[in-house]
Amino acid sequence: MIITIKIGGSLADKETGGLVEDVKKLIKEHKLVIVHGGGPQINKISRKLGKEPTIVKSPSGFKSRFTDKETMDITIMAMAGKVNKNIVALLRKNQIPAIGLTGLDGRTIIAERKDKIVAVENGKKRILRGDYSGKIKEVNGALLKLIIDNGYLPVVAPIGISLENEPVNLDGDRAAAHIAKAVNADVFVSLTDVPGLIIDGKLVRNISRHEAEEVLEKVEGGMRKKIFAALEALSLGIKTVIICSGLEKNPISSALELKVGTIIK
Amino acid sequence: MIITIKIGGSLADKETGGLVEDVKKLIKEHKLVIVHGGGPQINKISRKLGKEPTIVKSPSGFKSRFTDKETMDITIMAMAGKVNKNIVALLRKNQIPAIGLTGLDGRTIIAERKDKIVAVENGKKRILRGDYSGKIKEVNGALLKLIIDNGYLPVVAPIGISLENEPVNLDGDRAAAHIAKAVNADVFVSLTDVPGLIIDGKLVRNISRHEAEEVLEKVEGGMRKKIFAALEALSLGIKTVIICSGLEKNPISSALELKVGTIIK
Repeated sequence: MIITIKIGGSLADKETGGLVEDVKKLIKEHKLVIVHGGGPQINKISRKLGKEPTIVKSPSGFKSRFTDKETMDITIMAMAGKVNKNIVALLRKNQIPAIGLTGLDGRTIIAERKDKIVAVENGKKRILRGDYSGKIKEVNGALLKLIIDNGYLPVVAPIGISLENEPVNLDGDRAAAHIAKAVNADVFVSLTDVPGLIIDGKLVRNISRHEAEEVLEKVEGGMRKKIFAALEALSLGIKTVIICSGLEKNPISSALELKVGTIIK
Repeated sequence: MIITIKIGGSLADKETGGLVEDVKKLIKEHKLVIVHGGGPQINKISRKLGKEPTIVKSPSGFKSRFTDKETMDITIMAMAGKVNKNIVALLRKNQIPAIGLTGLDGRTIIAERKDKIVAVENGKKRILRGDYSGKIKEVNGALLKLIIDNGYLPVVAPIGISLENEPVNLDGDRAAAHIAKAVNADVFVSLTDVPGLIIDGKLVRNISRHEAEEVLEKVEGGMRKKIFAALEALSLGIKTVIICSGLEKNPISSALELKVGTIIK
């Protein structure tokens, strides 16, 4: 099987052994690609550098980072530098032959730079210019497959390259969905710090694409992005998306056995 | 030909077109690997984060960075993040299919962590512990060749992975020498901001290995490191090392034609 796994950027800080042990076991039989996040790490480094992060809400209810040039620079340092290499070193410590890369490298993720974004503040719309976030257009599946087929595990930071060859900030979950498509993944496992989609206090175990679309309006924050990215992966042709906790023992294996999390088909 | 090129970390900031244009031309006929530096960029980001860099002098007269854990983190952000990705984006803007990586990725550069270093201050020796700099043991030439043979240009940041799988700081010139050996480079071109080795105000055009060893005692600073790395490359089996200015038109092509710089054989 080809499995795309989205993990949080804090893996290297929080990891207790369950997830990495699982990857170590799975890579013997399957082909894996990891995509990581790192929002909190960007915030932390940004504040250390004296720049308060700007998080805005879009008219469709998604929160995102306003990424001006300086924030893009900080994002590269935090994501391609600190977070990506921490994860690569952690995997390597466990004998997993990881190779970290960004969408800039080998033009792995080509994305259209948005430049301006619409933010909603106190019910009013405001246009912010000079943004460096991207809408994914194409993923270089050939390079990822070359890396995988030669026995390595690609670990991808969600930074794209624009059509003008500038770096652009990407949503990690959506980047993972597009990468899943590009490597023809059989399944996309999206790991988070909760057991899955929770509605009215209960974990939803199975949900159809249609139901997930309806649910989208009711969920907020990180889970909203995860459901949205899951729907994007399904629309791109991925058969199964599983959202589950990455903090348990064998989180990916358990997800593949459909024992945990929310399964979206 | 297989050519290993060492460039300064400031390429993406200072580049006027000559060097990148040259790489663009050369990659059509030759196989290239680029290794970059970035000391000034580490200093800049370190100071922005409120940490004054500590540069020490070894008993053998080499200046180097004392790399404590925090400095190693900053080095990763600056080198693997900012500098490496700036260079990758600049090359890509010129249609050069670059892939940035560090020695952590695919365990490309395995280096023994030094942990303690001896610093000379006012004629007195002092031992500094907790250092994260590395002595190169092995380069994964197979991965670099895989990347090159598939039409990409590897751009390597001088960060190694220790035997305990920690990141370690490397000297860029020496990393380039070892990489040259690992990819069986025909020539190692070391670009700098001066025309080459200058003795008594005159550019030395040709110098033997033996002469270079004698000269080593007389030169200081960056050039001393470059001569030392050139000798290391020769002792590793590289036939020709050329130290020349990267700020001229077609700097690499001119070096390959032996028209510029200091040629060490």
